[in-house]
Amino acid sequence: MTLSARNRLDGKIEELQLGGVMAHVAIRVGENLIESVITRRSAEEMKLKIGDTVSAVIKSTEVMLEKK
Amino acid sequence: MTLSARNRLDGKIEELQLGGVMAHVAIRVGENLIESVITRRSAEEMKLKIGDTVSAVIKSTEVMLEKK
Amino acid sequence: MTLSARNRLDGKIEELQLGGVMAHVAIRVGENLIESVITRRSAEEMKLKIGDTVSAVIKSTEVMLEKK
Amino acid sequence: MTLSARNRLDGKIEELQLGGVMAHVAIRVGENLIESVITRRSAEEMKLKIGDTVSAVIKSTEVMLEKK
Amino acid sequence: MTLSARNRLDGKIEELQLGGVMAHVAIRVGENLIESVITRRSAEEMKLKIGDTVSAVIKSTEVMLEKK
Amino acid sequence: MTLSARNRLDGKIEELQLGGVMAHVAIRVGENLIESVITRRSAEEMKLKIGDTVSAVIKSTEVMLEKK
Repeated sequence: MTLSARNRLDGKIEELQLGGVMAHVAIRVGENLIESVITRRSAEEMKLKIGDTVSAVIKSTEVMLEKK
Repeated sequence: MTLSARNRLDGKIEELQLGGVMAHVAIRVGENLIESVITRRSAEEMKLKIGDTVSAVIKSTEVMLEKK
Repeated sequence: MTLSARNRLDGKIEELQLGGVMAHVAIRVGENLIESVITRRSAEEMKLKIGDTVSAVIKSTEVMLEKK
Repeated sequence: MTLSARNRLDGKIEELQLGGVMAHVAIRVGENLIESVITRRSAEEMKLKIGDTVSAVIKSTEVMLEKK
Repeated sequence: MTLSARNRLDGKIEELQLGGVMAHVAIRVGENLIESVITRRSAEEMKLKIGDTVSAVIKSTEVMLEKK
Repeated sequence: MTLSARNRLDGKIEELQLGGVMAHVAIRVGENLIESVITRRSAEEMKLKIGDTVSAVIKSTEVMLEKK
């Protein structure tokens, strides 16, 4: 099964905060902390919890670049 | 200067392809290759070239999670 | 394997147009035609062709509503 | 009046949940359930309620594809 | 007819560039120049041309903030 | 420091509402009110408050067009 989204970063959940509609999830990926906002429903249906191994998946049109 | 986007991954440009309107840029971030699609105009105005140090910047609402 | 994106619409590819960087794909989902723009690279690596069975996958934060 | 967003799926609201800032809306579109996250303010100003006929509107750059 | 997207900026098209799949459109909104990337098909079907009065429409979840 | 996002609108914060996970911010930009949804964490870390001068930053692929 292949998804067209070109970015997939493997990590572990370090923080998980549930709001009324949304959930904030922080994933440790090497030395980076990736933050994701998904629906609370997805977080619950996926049974996400701290320590879980997950991938952050990002469509390439959503990635901006910054140059110093 | 602070941007609300919570994800910033530092890397080096490994590939750069210019189309008519868009540009495809691949950035090496540790063991991951991050792919970004920006406008050709931004790529030109930022004078992006292979080897440049850049950051991939991603709003957290654009980050999905996948669990195996 | 579960993705947090909550929308998945199964259909068949009816049209496929490759540009320099991006690709335009139209998918028949019942009586709707769903249009997707992905990278040309993804279209090629996934070997997409007309008639393929695929799913359109959409993060719920990207879905707007309109009321008449 | 025409909007450039190429996807418009007509359906009926089946579920509506209001959070502090966001609202989660599920729309029945044929055999699919489309989920949308919009601001609570939009949900209130549009006076959305269960049973309303609405369209889900999606920009094509936000549609990913998955192939089995 | 109401769309949930909360941002609508009225302006005039100043530049229009068609690529193979995408189109780049610049709109004068007061002293700002707003740039939009839509599909070439939408640009053609909407018959966009320089001087047209259009609105830029943006979902609020896509708006980042920057503070100096 | 340059960001690839092509739209930057300078304004002043007129409204700020914090939810559990997200924050809703309204910015006066000339005669337009721009609304942004960011994470509550960003709003807090940036110490956003009413009257602050900020820029709304938007990637051009997120801007739709509407023609009357």
